[in-house]
Amino acid sequence: MSGFVPKNPDFAARVRDSFERQGAMKLIGAELVHVAPGAVDIALDFRPELAQQHGFFHGGIVGTAADSAGGYAAFSLMPADATVLTVEYKMNLMAPAQGSRLIAKGRVIKPGRTLTICNVDVFVLRDGREHHCAVLLQTLMSMAGHSDGPRG
Amino acid sequence: MSGFVPKNPDFAARVRDSFERQGAMKLIGAELVHVAPGAVDIALDFRPELAQQHGFFHGGIVGTAADSAGGYAAFSLMPADATVLTVEYKMNLMAPAQGSRLIAKGRVIKPGRTLTICNVDVFVLRDGREHHCAVLLQTLMSMAGHSDGPRG
Amino acid sequence: MSGFVPKNPDFAARVRDSFERQGAMKLIGAELVHVAPGAVDIALDFRPELAQQHGFFHGGIVGTAADSAGGYAAFSLMPADATVLTVEYKMNLMAPAQGSRLIAKGRVIKPGRTLTICNVDVFVLRDGREHHCAVLLQTLMSMAGHSDGPRG
Amino acid sequence: MSGFVPKNPDFAARVRDSFERQGAMKLIGAELVHVAPGAVDIALDFRPELAQQHGFFHGGIVGTAADSAGGYAAFSLMPADATVLTVEYKMNLMAPAQGSRLIAKGRVIKPGRTLTICNVDVFVLRDGREHHCAVLLQTLMSMAGHSDGPRG
Repeated sequence: MSGFVPKNPDFAARVRDSFERQGAMKLIGAELVHVAPGAVDIALDFRPELAQQHGFFHGGIVGTAADSAGGYAAFSLMPADATVLTVEYKMNLMAPAQGSRLIAKGRVIKPGRTLTICNVDVFVLRDGREHHCAVLLQTLMSMAGHSDGPRG
Repeated sequence: MSGFVPKNPDFAARVRDSFERQGAMKLIGAELVHVAPGAVDIALDFRPELAQQHGFFHGGIVGTAADSAGGYAAFSLMPADATVLTVEYKMNLMAPAQGSRLIAKGRVIKPGRTLTICNVDVFVLRDGREHHCAVLLQTLMSMAGHSDGPRG
Repeated sequence: MSGFVPKNPDFAARVRDSFERQGAMKLIGAELVHVAPGAVDIALDFRPELAQQHGFFHGGIVGTAADSAGGYAAFSLMPADATVLTVEYKMNLMAPAQGSRLIAKGRVIKPGRTLTICNVDVFVLRDGREHHCAVLLQTLMSMAGHSDGPRG
Repeated sequence: MSGFVPKNPDFAARVRDSFERQGAMKLIGAELVHVAPGAVDIALDFRPELAQQHGFFHGGIVGTAADSAGGYAAFSLMPADATVLTVEYKMNLMAPAQGSRLIAKGRVIKPGRTLTICNVDVFVLRDGREHHCAVLLQTLMSMAGHSDGPRG
């Protein structure tokens, strides 16, 4: 248990609704597999279209899943009238992302009124076990008074 | 002119060949638009499948294009028997990537026998001009004696 | 010329005044050698107390000078009633900081109302010429309505 | 228990010996307070010379202690004939480092023959309890066949 208390009781529905509107998540075949206050996991199966030149998950695809996992972990703690933007992230690709499935686990380290800091650990499933292949340290910004929907 | 002298005279063909084998580049519709020693540009047009929830390019897609631009800029200076791996990158998303086309310009800052450091500036085309929307600082590793092809 | 227009015409005096109050700058012997809108250079001479175990400038000392150079570059563009905080930075130590003098050149890439992004290039003087030894990518925050002085 | 097995049974003596030769650690008054395989803690007391303009620990001083904590955590797992270099780090300053003592806890996430990845959590002691004020994600390089001593 993270111990974080969400400001918005409907946080899970709000995360799921926003996730559905991310075209990039559909493109890479990502699913939301865990949503809790300050903790969101995103998973996707391997397909050759997600590969780099050696046939493993492309680092950018790893980053795409991880950025959303951390972003939604932060978003889960934000008030109902705010949206979330990624300010920056740094990702270490520690081992080849070689495997059948990728799981990005975003966790809030420090929530804040304006800025939230997250850690995201990424694992790749290979030979029946999870291998820790990447880690992200990420800064997110809460934009108060902005709808999370498309901007006209 | 960067002033870098490639170790492999066939660097451009090698970059193009490796790029063709990255399924992720096809998935996002990326093209290699500039290849010079230590300098590679990658561009892609906007499609809703590349978007985050506000309808702009997803940060992870920006990172995917930028990671490859910096990676191939580094690769262009590596010897013919080496392959390239991204060790890590840090990306600042400075402005919404809202526009019709994204251009990631990877440039080697410091080439090295083992590690190469790159900067990548990313621009989005909107209202007929390039807006600087992201910047990456990236560490790449040269793996000597490794084929750049799929690993069996 | 950077082209940035400072919001506070007294920006240079304000930067110098704040710099004087940083005990850490005195400790490492740092001097403010250039102050312009969005651009601040900080330099310091080598002493054995600034070294790591090989006798070069310690990476943390490089980071201390660079963090202040980028921080004051950002601060130079902020309004008179704001103070500056470093949100985060990422530093690549590209070559040993071996030399007689270190110069950190902070430059604003993207100023913003809340967040400002800076690049800092660090050079070490050796054999009469500047060697590029480190690069930082840094996020700063403007805190409106906060004095820049000590907090009681 | 981290579960890491050191390659060098004398790792603790080697870490302490190298630490003693870092002038920068003496300058900031840092002490080595914990040394285990893949885990090193460094602590220092507040003095005005370590401050930024608001009277808190300077971010660069936080980074200096943290860089050494992570660097020595990595070094503790390296073979006896290798030395360690920081390739890069990214630090988030999550809360003001306001307090009487700073403790940087460096932990290896992923050891490697060439590159090792560490996480460093930094706490500041205030009102009798540890506040989590910074986090680092760091890449270190093992240089085989290099003495850890001063380079002639």
